[in-house]
Amino acid sequence: MPITVTGSIAFDSVRTPFGERERMLGGTSVHFALAASFFDAVHVVGCVGEDFGEAEMDVLRRRGVDVSDIERVAGGKTFFWRGDYGWDLNSRETLDTQLGVFEGFEPKLSDASRASEVLFLGNIQPDLQRAVRAQLPHARMVALDSMNLWIDAAKDSLQAAIKEVDCVILNDAELRQLTGRPNLLSAAQEVLGWGPKAVVGKQGEYGAALVTADGFFSLPAFPLETVVDPTGAGDTFAGGFVGYLATHSEGHFSDEVLRQAMVCGTTLASFNVEEFGTERVQRLRADEIAARVAELHRLTQFSLTELPLRDQAHGDPAPLPAFNASS
Amino acid sequence: MPITVTGSIAFDSVRTPFGERERMLGGTSVHFALAASFFDAVHVVGCVGEDFGEAEMDVLRRRGVDVSDIERVAGGKTFFWRGDYGWDLNSRETLDTQLGVFEGFEPKLSDASRASEVLFLGNIQPDLQRAVRAQLPHARMVALDSMNLWIDAAKDSLQAAIKEVDCVILNDAELRQLTGRPNLLSAAQEVLGWGPKAVVGKQGEYGAALVTADGFFSLPAFPLETVVDPTGAGDTFAGGFVGYLATHSEGHFSDEVLRQAMVCGTTLASFNVEEFGTERVQRLRADEIAARVAELHRLTQFSLTELPLRDQAHGDPAPLPAFNASS
Repeated sequence: MPITVTGSIAFDSVRTPFGERERMLGGTSVHFALAASFFDAVHVVGCVGEDFGEAEMDVLRRRGVDVSDIERVAGGKTFFWRGDYGWDLNSRETLDTQLGVFEGFEPKLSDASRASEVLFLGNIQPDLQRAVRAQLPHARMVALDSMNLWIDAAKDSLQAAIKEVDCVILNDAELRQLTGRPNLLSAAQEVLGWGPKAVVGKQGEYGAALVTADGFFSLPAFPLETVVDPTGAGDTFAGGFVGYLATHSEGHFSDEVLRQAMVCGTTLASFNVEEFGTERVQRLRADEIAARVAELHRLTQFSLTELPLRDQAHGDPAPLPAFNASS
Repeated sequence: MPITVTGSIAFDSVRTPFGERERMLGGTSVHFALAASFFDAVHVVGCVGEDFGEAEMDVLRRRGVDVSDIERVAGGKTFFWRGDYGWDLNSRETLDTQLGVFEGFEPKLSDASRASEVLFLGNIQPDLQRAVRAQLPHARMVALDSMNLWIDAAKDSLQAAIKEVDCVILNDAELRQLTGRPNLLSAAQEVLGWGPKAVVGKQGEYGAALVTADGFFSLPAFPLETVVDPTGAGDTFAGGFVGYLATHSEGHFSDEVLRQAMVCGTTLASFNVEEFGTERVQRLRADEIAARVAELHRLTQFSLTELPLRDQAHGDPAPLPAFNASS
């Protein structure tokens, strides 16, 4: 099923312990679209300034992404972000944010973008998310991301937006903040109570957790010896996650399908952080994705075996055959 | 194989968002021994003050733990710790530490404790760890824990102690601090270079990662809606992990056995945090452990299926049969 995404398109200037880059191509829609394009057709709805060139557009076009709903605003400047990452990449400081044309962003959807059956509402003002959502009334799967800014400044709007989507993808800290519940599982269950069928809590280098009405699934991040730049990892995760779901045209997402989507999101994100910005994902190949999925499986799976548990004090070990060897 | 553990025996006064307790039974050796006792015989080497009563000893005895190497120091006071946990339990503040008899602790091992083939060196001064290690020259598996205090104050001693053990179990932040490497995988590999065959990075609510020369395994924590008190979770993890290994008398620990040990550590720790101090683990049953292990398996496993990946821009989805459906 084709996918429409709306969210920022940006130039990012980033410094990490491994180097720095000036004005790299970035933003939610770009990272999301590159990842999702491995699974299905993607339409990007967004805006850029006159400083956004054909070279940048070509990065998306080369992956088959439809860029016809990216509005180039005459005289405008593309959204710009500058940030510094700390020693272990777990903290980052925003040094500069220039909204540029993004400040007056009014998503305009072509018929093609409106016809998508899957929609990803990247992190923008929640009322804008709702306006886009309303233009795809027949979408079979709508996922939403947000951030602490909107939880602070527009919580009611955000909650209204969440009520209208199928899946919420947030950082675990944002889930806690949004619900006032300190525990991830409890916070996710609160959000499920608002309407969505699935909540994903992104946990950065630790992985991600999926919570549904009748299930829980937790997956660690793919282990890497060197993480160069985490910028866009969350959006790349969302692209892999939503992209995989889009390939299931039945529109019903079983626990098993959602788990596979978690695996795809985790795997795509692991490539994203290996280099700056979109550098790694731009040249990513399908066989590399498949190989890493298989590796992630090897690194996280275990078999159930009989545990030699002693229940009684002073007793000899008495094997407890509470479950059989199987995986 | 019988297990000997040395480390603190304590009274802990703890406040969390869910309540508080005064002078509960705690300390590394206690949490470790209660968990490990589900797997094999445990000898505790430690010291307490006159304030440590038979009721406390009985908590260990009821689980079959040998307490004959716990020295009760006349006129002394048991190690005491007071701490407050923050809103989400991820941060804690130490309000008071009174070493008491622990300050002059000189581990004295009986023949029975020296005869153990498995040794856990809980978090004490690294030279003391080495002295105990030297008394079990024929131990087939020695694991060690430590803390930031010793990394700061006795790094050379700690490194010497690590060189003499088979397995290091540390918080991931401690592994980073110890090695000066910001990346967990890279830090663990550095420590492997010093001699140990396995390094476990504990990640609190996010789980734990195992790194060996030829393997990596990552396991999320068991999801709980309410975590009441994390005190002792790491030591309980170690008790489950080392305890499981002790049941493998061949003394060779395959990747599969180490993974099972991670599962046992994770499962035992999940019970520990459900209530204050040792309250939950004191009344834990083997069948509850087995059931939760099976549940942890359900919550973390996924099957490999064919991914419908598109490698070419503009192309139709071309399924990539890079691996077959199997788990």
